[in-house]
Amino acid sequence: MDPMNAVVLLSGGLDSTTVAYLAKNEGYRLYALSFDYHQRHRRELEAAKAVAQAVGVVEHRFVSFDLSLWGGSALTDDELEVPLHRSAETMTTAIPITYVPARNTIFLSFALGYAEVVGAQAVFAGMNALDYSGYPDCRPDYLAAMEEVFRLGSKAGREGKPIKILTPLIQKTKREIVEWGNILQVPWALTYSCYQGNLDSCGVCDSCTLRLNAFREAGLPDPIAYAKR
Amino acid sequence: MDPMNAVVLLSGGLDSTTVAYLAKNEGYRLYALSFDYHQRHRRELEAAKAVAQAVGVVEHRFVSFDLSLWGGSALTDDELEVPLHRSAETMTTAIPITYVPARNTIFLSFALGYAEVVGAQAVFAGMNALDYSGYPDCRPDYLAAMEEVFRLGSKAGREGKPIKILTPLIQKTKREIVEWGNILQVPWALTYSCYQGNLDSCGVCDSCTLRLNAFREAGLPDPIAYAKR
Repeated sequence: MDPMNAVVLLSGGLDSTTVAYLAKNEGYRLYALSFDYHQRHRRELEAAKAVAQAVGVVEHRFVSFDLSLWGGSALTDDELEVPLHRSAETMTTAIPITYVPARNTIFLSFALGYAEVVGAQAVFAGMNALDYSGYPDCRPDYLAAMEEVFRLGSKAGREGKPIKILTPLIQKTKREIVEWGNILQVPWALTYSCYQGNLDSCGVCDSCTLRLNAFREAGLPDPIAYAKR
Repeated sequence: MDPMNAVVLLSGGLDSTTVAYLAKNEGYRLYALSFDYHQRHRRELEAAKAVAQAVGVVEHRFVSFDLSLWGGSALTDDELEVPLHRSAETMTTAIPITYVPARNTIFLSFALGYAEVVGAQAVFAGMNALDYSGYPDCRPDYLAAMEEVFRLGSKAGREGKPIKILTPLIQKTKREIVEWGNILQVPWALTYSCYQGNLDSCGVCDSCTLRLNAFREAGLPDPIAYAKR
């Protein structure tokens, strides 16, 4: 049987790293894809590189473009503050300011192009239950629509070999992701989640808060260094 | 009534230029969006700038990224030759080598992000009958799927104000586009279509051949300079 190829969207955080290990575990040959979209820091790209090497990918491509061009999100617009100390509850009641317009649509579009070129059967992405409560472009109905775009908007799809979008974490909480990743022996020390981008994670931004809570709830140690926890 | 805003995908060729004039004529305030995707030449970006200025846009943004990274198309891969002297008939029988994997999906994804940030109600794009006979990501069913992505994958769409994808040329032949553009007084001299990228258009590549035929069939002069015609 031909080897199965998959593109994996890899940010170097908990979710995408766990997904890379899941895909590997299912026997896929991995083509990692990361983005430098002029996010506030690029520390996470270093994490993505380390993870790609650890999991063992066929190749790791970086696509660079500038979303700060038109701002509109705290993650790309220097005039907007990254929120600190919000609770998980308030984080899920509205579309957060860290929402980057069309980001996942852009990411998945590049993944589709890459998947066509390398002959991949699937694109793996890390969307999960927490994301889709807040971000419109993480929800299952959105992902189904995007998969239809994959089918109709590609040569492969038109020839009856549609490229799937696989999001194995879509029903998972952060705690469950940590538990699952732990079984797969994900090297958490290589991952990075903080919005601030310093060598030591801040421990107080939304992303650090969620990460720390997930490890705490799972009863597992988080091996990365924090300035404050 | 509030002014209507629209993002226009502008390559500087016949189709997107005509669409810009159509959108302007319908009363939209235009936000032009052009891409430097390391296509073989950037002469067309100069054309896009001139057209944007002529039609009168609120702003003109350029997004740069590198699709030559993974090649796979004669337009982005230096190892593949741009085909010359193919007839319109053979051009429409299969997906051409000038197909760039996921290009329109990537373009429309950026347009969605831009449209959200500027509060646009629509994205205008120049897909037409000739395109969709060959390219999967120009066909009406694909565009409908992408519009569903726009609806589900954006804050605006989730709040009941979906951003439309408008392709007024979708049923038009190149001849009809030239005829329609002529009524709108499109400044053809500012546009550029050639795949080769020299100051004078080559007159022999697919794109020049289609353009010259369109003007000839419409009985109108094409004012740009050709090396050969």
